[in-house]
Amino acid sequence: MKIGYVQFNPEFGNVEGNLNHVKDALEEIDADLIVLPELFNTGYTFTDIKEVHELSEDIPNGRTTKFLSELAKKHNLFIAGGLAEVSEGRLFNSAVLVGPDGYIGKYRKSHLFFEENLWFEPGETGFQIFNINGVNVGMLICFDWIFPEAMRTLALKGADLILHMTNLVLPFYQISATTRAVENKVFIILSNRYGTEKRNGREFRFTGQSEIVSPKGEILVQSLAEEDDVKIIEINPEEARKKSINEYNDLFKMRRTDLYFK
Amino acid sequence: MKIGYVQFNPEFGNVEGNLNHVKDALEEIDADLIVLPELFNTGYTFTDIKEVHELSEDIPNGRTTKFLSELAKKHNLFIAGGLAEVSEGRLFNSAVLVGPDGYIGKYRKSHLFFEENLWFEPGETGFQIFNINGVNVGMLICFDWIFPEAMRTLALKGADLILHMTNLVLPFYQISATTRAVENKVFIILSNRYGTEKRNGREFRFTGQSEIVSPKGEILVQSLAEEDDVKIIEINPEEARKKSINEYNDLFKMRRTDLYFK
Repeated sequence: MKIGYVQFNPEFGNVEGNLNHVKDALEEIDADLIVLPELFNTGYTFTDIKEVHELSEDIPNGRTTKFLSELAKKHNLFIAGGLAEVSEGRLFNSAVLVGPDGYIGKYRKSHLFFEENLWFEPGETGFQIFNINGVNVGMLICFDWIFPEAMRTLALKGADLILHMTNLVLPFYQISATTRAVENKVFIILSNRYGTEKRNGREFRFTGQSEIVSPKGEILVQSLAEEDDVKIIEINPEEARKKSINEYNDLFKMRRTDLYFK
Repeated sequence: MKIGYVQFNPEFGNVEGNLNHVKDALEEIDADLIVLPELFNTGYTFTDIKEVHELSEDIPNGRTTKFLSELAKKHNLFIAGGLAEVSEGRLFNSAVLVGPDGYIGKYRKSHLFFEENLWFEPGETGFQIFNINGVNVGMLICFDWIFPEAMRTLALKGADLILHMTNLVLPFYQISATTRAVENKVFIILSNRYGTEKRNGREFRFTGQSEIVSPKGEILVQSLAEEDDVKIIEINPEEARKKSINEYNDLFKMRRTDLYFK
């Protein structure tokens, strides 16, 4: 299975330009699955809720989901990416998964970071598994990383591969993802953006260094802190199904659920 | 609060020598709490269950617990250390906590690594908090680290400081401890041993690099991979009580227990 990501510097509010960047980035690639960053179509730095309403879209009937579905059909692959969602007037920091046959599913960010709490509602979709060509994938968005229960829940439900869409402002998760991969024995695609956004007194600098991590905690590939980049590598998702590390230790079977949270 | 650890290379089966090493190491120190490695009194590489029975001790009435209690009284401090425990014929990979007034409590390793499963029973003490001079401490032993629920349970019960006694054979946890500290906002004392043990065809090389990590994930102090060392630093345990990282994000209050493990 050939998996990868697009790292770039989305321009705030320029949906047309950001979609075109992705379209161009995928033109020549050979991949089965591509992950885009959080809020890849709009940029991150909202400054009032009116802007969020203007830039949010229905999933699956909005422009961005349709665009990604067409791209997935054209290139015969699966694509996950983050976007602001509006649903009956409610706003979510969401991610969508599409494939050659169109829309598959969405995830609404469970743990909102900083001022996202002013615009979005915490998601209630929970941590769901989507099966794509026999491989179990789960989606997470950015700050979800710091709560070990989030990826753990996906792994316990059978996730082989975590599609993690981020707009990281600290360089911490790029290291911590190796711990998350090892403790859960899963692959992680960490698709981060880079660049600086300054708007109305707010300023965020995003840390790039997108990466793909193996169930052994190896960083298989990584981008620089500031570059447009597409990385694609071949993995064997079966490696994530083996939770034993020696004949005595199966990391899932030996969990002490009799002792946890008690 | 002055906290620290002793890193050394215990000699297998030489309890007298190992206790004397600790006694000498603590002779000149100024500390409130010292953590010793896992199985610091016996060494690690048991090769049959008879050896384990011979070297295991009652807690608190065995030689090592009494020795540590006397040392704690003499230096007016708290000490945690790992030892093999026998209790009504049952064997555990345990840790003991003592203070100036004697024995305080014990922890029996919940997640046994590799051939430890041949000698020891998985612990059933669970993850308990001990209050020492107003500071909440919890104990973990080595392989417990890879199960995020272990330290999480201690942190949710109010642990400020994790006393983590190890005989690590990989250098992975020394990095992952920064993730554990950040996700739980606790201090961690990682007291590891170093050196190589070869016995009856078995060989383990332990990775040293003991360290103390802050709730921000900073490695405050660290030893080399191969050295006898004692490190003591002053910390403010109050720093572990603040689980909020900005006005919108309290890492404990915003946990989505409605979504985890479902």
